[in-house]
Amino acid sequence: MRILVQKFGGSSLSTQEFRYRAIYHIEKALAEGYSLVVVVSAMGRSGDPYATDTLLDLIRSNSDHLPKRETDMLLHTGEIISACVLCSMLQERGIISTVLSGGQANIITTDDFTNAQILSIEGQRIKQELGAGKVVIVPGFQGRTENWEITTLGRGGSDTTATALGVALQAEMVDIFTDVNGIMTADPRLVSEARQLDAVTYTEICNMAHLGAKVIHPRAVEIAMQTNVPIRVRSTFSDDPGTLVTSLTEMSSKQANVTDRLVVGIAHVSSITQIKVQAKEGQYDTQMVFKAMANHGISVDFIDVNPSGVAYTVHDQMASRAGGILTEMGYEPQLMHHCAKVSVIGAGIAGVPGVMAQIVEALTTEDIQILQSADSHTTIWVLVPEVDMVRAVRALHQQFQLHLSR
Amino acid sequence: MRILVQKFGGSSLSTQEFRYRAIYHIEKALAEGYSLVVVVSAMGRSGDPYATDTLLDLIRSNSDHLPKRETDMLLHTGEIISACVLCSMLQERGIISTVLSGGQANIITTDDFTNAQILSIEGQRIKQELGAGKVVIVPGFQGRTENWEITTLGRGGSDTTATALGVALQAEMVDIFTDVNGIMTADPRLVSEARQLDAVTYTEICNMAHLGAKVIHPRAVEIAMQTNVPIRVRSTFSDDPGTLVTSLTEMSSKQANVTDRLVVGIAHVSSITQIKVQAKEGQYDTQMVFKAMANHGISVDFIDVNPSGVAYTVHDQMASRAGGILTEMGYEPQLMHHCAKVSVIGAGIAGVPGVMAQIVEALTTEDIQILQSADSHTTIWVLVPEVDMVRAVRALHQQFQLHLSR
Repeated sequence: MRILVQKFGGSSLSTQEFRYRAIYHIEKALAEGYSLVVVVSAMGRSGDPYATDTLLDLIRSNSDHLPKRETDMLLHTGEIISACVLCSMLQERGIISTVLSGGQANIITTDDFTNAQILSIEGQRIKQELGAGKVVIVPGFQGRTENWEITTLGRGGSDTTATALGVALQAEMVDIFTDVNGIMTADPRLVSEARQLDAVTYTEICNMAHLGAKVIHPRAVEIAMQTNVPIRVRSTFSDDPGTLVTSLTEMSSKQANVTDRLVVGIAHVSSITQIKVQAKEGQYDTQMVFKAMANHGISVDFIDVNPSGVAYTVHDQMASRAGGILTEMGYEPQLMHHCAKVSVIGAGIAGVPGVMAQIVEALTTEDIQILQSADSHTTIWVLVPEVDMVRAVRALHQQFQLHLSR
Repeated sequence: MRILVQKFGGSSLSTQEFRYRAIYHIEKALAEGYSLVVVVSAMGRSGDPYATDTLLDLIRSNSDHLPKRETDMLLHTGEIISACVLCSMLQERGIISTVLSGGQANIITTDDFTNAQILSIEGQRIKQELGAGKVVIVPGFQGRTENWEITTLGRGGSDTTATALGVALQAEMVDIFTDVNGIMTADPRLVSEARQLDAVTYTEICNMAHLGAKVIHPRAVEIAMQTNVPIRVRSTFSDDPGTLVTSLTEMSSKQANVTDRLVVGIAHVSSITQIKVQAKEGQYDTQMVFKAMANHGISVDFIDVNPSGVAYTVHDQMASRAGGILTEMGYEPQLMHHCAKVSVIGAGIAGVPGVMAQIVEALTTEDIQILQSADSHTTIWVLVPEVDMVRAVRALHQQFQLHLSR
């Protein structure tokens, strides 16, 4: 049995016309001989009353005192409704299909309501339905505990459902249908020469997703990576094969020139404030800074601890609150509002000397100040003033010749 | 633990104002020391997008090819949403509550999707939550099979959920909240002197419900009758104690004058066609008439088999279809359109001579033709021309002195 998992997001299911596009891809995969598992999100957010956000609004208009357990019961209905609508449309076209809720599909999770983690998936029931020739529609974003408490996987959870099912069912591929054709080398609204990538690695797309190119949830990618299930990020609205997400090894075995791949994309995220705090009495007390942020639920990023103090970033919206907390603690924080984080991503940069040098060169030529930098195995991040963000992305895209097809 | 089950229908939950009325009754019952199980229907049909009908519309706008199993998955979400909204409102007022889906409440049913029958209820989980001081909200109309397939109990199913829980939990009482104050001796729109009944028997209300006074589903009453759980039919919008539904024995023990009770109400249902078929070759072939009706899914009622042929009734809307079938079969059916069935109901009429005589007298005085009649232990039915229906109901109401309080 060749199993394919297809995931359609809320926007792909928001109108009748879009749903017929989804069905086009379903019929195509069936014609190609696949046994098909279709994961759906709640119907889109374009005024549809059954979308996840609208269900939450329904409660908010009353009060937001709903316990988390019951919030999950409420939210999981959105995906079930979506799945039933698709089932109905498939049946109308003579395609035998069935809906298995997350619970019925035996997606077993922790009981961390609203943000549960998948513990295991017992794929027997799904395989049985596939074996009977049915398309199995699974409402995404949901699971159950051993005791049949209903849970949801948090935002982006339908991607996770799709890849986790891909792993559990040993699927040949997981297709994530979205409203873009695939992963681009940079945001095409910023960089006109940005091109679509044929393939990226799991790690690369994670760094892209974390940093603004929100096409697939990083948690979903990490799950696929466990058993190297290939993912295709592709558009509901075209036949473009999209961007393949796979391991570097897998990619090398198929693409001769993969060693040429150094940088594959430039991502960016704006509306960031850099906060610098001087140590009052040696480095020890700066630990208190991060404890204070955590206690107030303020996410921090881009942390740089050095002998004279610490620097880190928060979202612009959190900046004045963070500043106030620090002032109350007796610090004199320096806040630099309206910064942007620009990321140079590529699994090929690991251990390759001179990449940072090229980044500095490109930005210096453009007279763009690097406020801070950091690097990991596969990504280098620089913090720049937000006014310079677009020029920075363009300069780096040019520097690494990402406009050239490779 | 004194357990009270309260059931709020869709109309009682359709607006924020109405939901606060429901909460008023919940708080009152809690103040009276009850452990409370609240059964809810999908939010009302007054334009609310989450009502059962709207969920079905959602599918119909696509196609109505949804398999029954998936229809139940779709429909059961309406009640869950309703339950979560109520939970949220209760929590806001500091009333700890939890939602247990039909499945989680262990309401085990047959797998007759869209019309499942309750097989058993394991009340342990509910009692555990009640023991923890929580109000337990159960979405009505739903259950599950042993294998966790989701089922619905068909229309009127929330009443059934309420009384079945009442039986399983050995509740002191089941309150069915609706938009009327209680059961009336006749439809007050037809009979201005109609009065509210303090108490009726299970059998009486069943005959009333079947015949147009749709305040509680007969199936729900039959379940309550098994263990004599008392039901109160009452209004969400008042403090009126409503009408108590109980056994005749129970009633006798509390009401000295119960033996005076002969007739308690006059019900009616209109838009009926009487069909008479002459036997062609002896009585045997008339059996074919009913087989033919059943094969075409046409409900028949008021069946009278006699040596010369048969008479029965169908809904006016089915009349021409039924007539056509009979003609094709070679019969010459006589159709009398626009009839009405008037019912004289009272557990006290069993074995009491002269009740039929009084009915005939009352109708003859009014010059109303009795087209057909039938009687059971607790009800006598007469078929009259629909134009005479209102006069017939009034005449019978007067004949049995139902305007007098007893």
